[in-house]
Amino acid sequence: VALTHLDERGAARMVDISGKPVTTRTATARGVVLLSPAAVSALRDDALPKGDALAVTRIAAIQAAKHTADLIPLCHPLPLSSVTVDLEVVDEGVRIEVSVRTTSRTGVEMEALTAVSVGCLTLIDMVKAVDKHATITDVRVVAKAGGRSGDWSAT
Amino acid sequence: VALTHLDERGAARMVDISGKPVTTRTATARGVVLLSPAAVSALRDDALPKGDALAVTRIAAIQAAKHTADLIPLCHPLPLSSVTVDLEVVDEGVRIEVSVRTTSRTGVEMEALTAVSVGCLTLIDMVKAVDKHATITDVRVVAKAGGRSGDWSAT
Amino acid sequence: VALTHLDERGAARMVDISGKPVTTRTATARGVVLLSPAAVSALRDDALPKGDALAVTRIAAIQAAKHTADLIPLCHPLPLSSVTVDLEVVDEGVRIEVSVRTTSRTGVEMEALTAVSVGCLTLIDMVKAVDKHATITDVRVVAKAGGRSGDWSAT
Amino acid sequence: VALTHLDERGAARMVDISGKPVTTRTATARGVVLLSPAAVSALRDDALPKGDALAVTRIAAIQAAKHTADLIPLCHPLPLSSVTVDLEVVDEGVRIEVSVRTTSRTGVEMEALTAVSVGCLTLIDMVKAVDKHATITDVRVVAKAGGRSGDWSAT
Amino acid sequence: VALTHLDERGAARMVDISGKPVTTRTATARGVVLLSPAAVSALRDDALPKGDALAVTRIAAIQAAKHTADLIPLCHPLPLSSVTVDLEVVDEGVRIEVSVRTTSRTGVEMEALTAVSVGCLTLIDMVKAVDKHATITDVRVVAKAGGRSGDWSAT
Amino acid sequence: VALTHLDERGAARMVDISGKPVTTRTATARGVVLLSPAAVSALRDDALPKGDALAVTRIAAIQAAKHTADLIPLCHPLPLSSVTVDLEVVDEGVRIEVSVRTTSRTGVEMEALTAVSVGCLTLIDMVKAVDKHATITDVRVVAKAGGRSGDWSAT
Repeated sequence: VALTHLDERGAARMVDISGKPVTTRTATARGVVLLSPAAVSALRDDALPKGDALAVTRIAAIQAAKHTADLIPLCHPLPLSSVTVDLEVVDEGVRIEVSVRTTSRTGVEMEALTAVSVGCLTLIDMVKAVDKHATITDVRVVAKAGGRSGDWSAT
Repeated sequence: VALTHLDERGAARMVDISGKPVTTRTATARGVVLLSPAAVSALRDDALPKGDALAVTRIAAIQAAKHTADLIPLCHPLPLSSVTVDLEVVDEGVRIEVSVRTTSRTGVEMEALTAVSVGCLTLIDMVKAVDKHATITDVRVVAKAGGRSGDWSAT
Repeated sequence: VALTHLDERGAARMVDISGKPVTTRTATARGVVLLSPAAVSALRDDALPKGDALAVTRIAAIQAAKHTADLIPLCHPLPLSSVTVDLEVVDEGVRIEVSVRTTSRTGVEMEALTAVSVGCLTLIDMVKAVDKHATITDVRVVAKAGGRSGDWSAT
Repeated sequence: VALTHLDERGAARMVDISGKPVTTRTATARGVVLLSPAAVSALRDDALPKGDALAVTRIAAIQAAKHTADLIPLCHPLPLSSVTVDLEVVDEGVRIEVSVRTTSRTGVEMEALTAVSVGCLTLIDMVKAVDKHATITDVRVVAKAGGRSGDWSAT
Repeated sequence: VALTHLDERGAARMVDISGKPVTTRTATARGVVLLSPAAVSALRDDALPKGDALAVTRIAAIQAAKHTADLIPLCHPLPLSSVTVDLEVVDEGVRIEVSVRTTSRTGVEMEALTAVSVGCLTLIDMVKAVDKHATITDVRVVAKAGGRSGDWSAT
Repeated sequence: VALTHLDERGAARMVDISGKPVTTRTATARGVVLLSPAAVSALRDDALPKGDALAVTRIAAIQAAKHTADLIPLCHPLPLSSVTVDLEVVDEGVRIEVSVRTTSRTGVEMEALTAVSVGCLTLIDMVKAVDKHATITDVRVVAKAGGRSGDWSAT
């Protein structure tokens, strides 16, 4: 006898995407790390004890995009066609923007958000010797294209 | 002839902690996922298509704490003694707090922050079918104990 | 001169699937964890020191399906379209059933078996404070569909 | 205001081991893969299409012991001092026994069980071209030494 | 306002392959581990303390091919159709040759090189108790087929 | 009846280090990537399509040191106290030197060699659009300190 009726309401599952079309899909996410003026200065002067914070942040973000399905339990593993990371040092900290592209059956919003978040974490790790109050804020998807639910971008 | 003078100012390195004492250290971090009222209702009613969002979030956060050194390039791999995750559903979204403990040569602030961030990402993944504007905010360390730099907590 | 005739009989290899068609394929596997009556009671009463055993088991099983090719040396890495986990607490322990779907060039029997096995291991980890004799038994594929070798299910 | 009282009964946590002593601990687990006579013959004749099943199984088991804390969400990451794998081809299939040793604050039963389970899965992967009904059975801890809870072995 | 002009010359990126065709592509790489006569003898006599060096090397190489995109930050994750490893013990050490095949949008040269390199590292680990001067040399791609840039092989 | 006499001569095992003392140990390894003059020029001009090759190489090498026990089947997982990477662009290519330190029961030669090898692979990935014949050569341990077997360095 089959085990039926077990997957009760609320039980976690990786939802079926096998009926969705393979299309090229992109998503862009952003976030900000708020830093002290001293940390921003050290970053601009390349004077941090762990080294080149922006290069490390950029690479950590790209690698994190590839590990999204390892980190987020119900995410589908996806091939990625491109990942680009933009970083801007501003007076209040660092802004991170990541765009991810795939050709597959589901979107890459979580990949873009994961890359931004891990980029923010890495930036904090690089500056934490000089700023123990660094704060990640405003991490969200800002644009999406491709796929059934239509394109959109945050205003 | 040895390769000397190559590790120029700014080059990334994993800094040496071999001279630091092995002590029990703890860190606590927090963050918030801002959600729409519809997403908060779906969460409270356990009516999300991917299943039990809070349980999945909690487990993803614990596992992420263990993967911190994989994600953050210059973090030292550490043994972890405990990880606890607190979640609170409030009207504007979900608050996440994670405490991590280790007995080792360096602190676990990055582990606590990574767990909070991946918890926030997972929560977004669970609700994204009903809220595509979920936003992670105010992720930061709120308390630290053990280690040479002294205990502190955010007021 | 090329290195020829080296791949002698018996040498491990990841066999070539490039000539197989991309089709939708599913597999279902099952297993049982035999537990003491005390462990079954603690599970039913949600009274285990590590917390909610069934939720953790379900999530560990889903994540394990995604890591099959990391664990099994000669498995091909595959995209997964869905993973569902059914759990049933019975008097002698817990039954686990996992169904996996892919659209790719080879089947997902190993993914279903890996998810079941890691689910069983996780369940044991959750109850081991109250039952050190928990035993995994009867882990096997029970149904398969799609692919060249034909559909079948265990009677 | 602190987030208090959130970690309600039943919530998953990685329990605190920081107060436990660092000691040398060992655990041994066993399991069996039941195979058809044709599969046992192919194994004995080293005639399997994927190559040397026993060598691959042994290595997969050792590597799995190292990945236990990645697979089992609430397991503590541990250093391992040794892992040995014994394999015996018998008429009804293959018996696997794994012993694991650590010097740390908690035991390695889960590491031994994980190694056995992944060894069994790997063996099935190696023979599945000739036996689609292979079954894992009787996976359990058979001996434990070191640590506060006392030594024991199954009779 | 969008973050523009941030991705300055020289910033690391995962380049976009979404416009490239999906085709079957293969690559072959080779390398050599130079060993002392004593190590070569121990290898030929299967007398190494860590066990069967060639089987472990072969399996490590296959698994490494699957982890290429984890190790090389800007590599695209790819499905692999086959991986074969040839090993030859010669008087000056061991020669390794790996062929990898994929059906995807980019080539597998890095996968073949990564498999060879990790195979060489594993071989060194297996023999290092008897030879601490083992050296990896001449690791390079020797043939490539499929894809836009044309087939070629080293003479 | 116990499974005895199964671990026959030649079977792979992770050898027991539980009796070895915990001491601070360091190892240094080196390697070279041979490149075409055009690739060396592009590297010196920071004109590579994938971006900043040396920063990516350095970070990949550090991360690889942490993943040594994942890649090399019989390596013991170790905590690492520091990892430093030196890179030198010379007329014939790039020289890489990595030093690793641990406080544990076994040495870190494999970690240093793995970091060098993955650094070399990453460098090749960064330049392969302009040089498909890049070759890794002369990867070996050049110095070791701490541990029972005594300090040494290559002349």
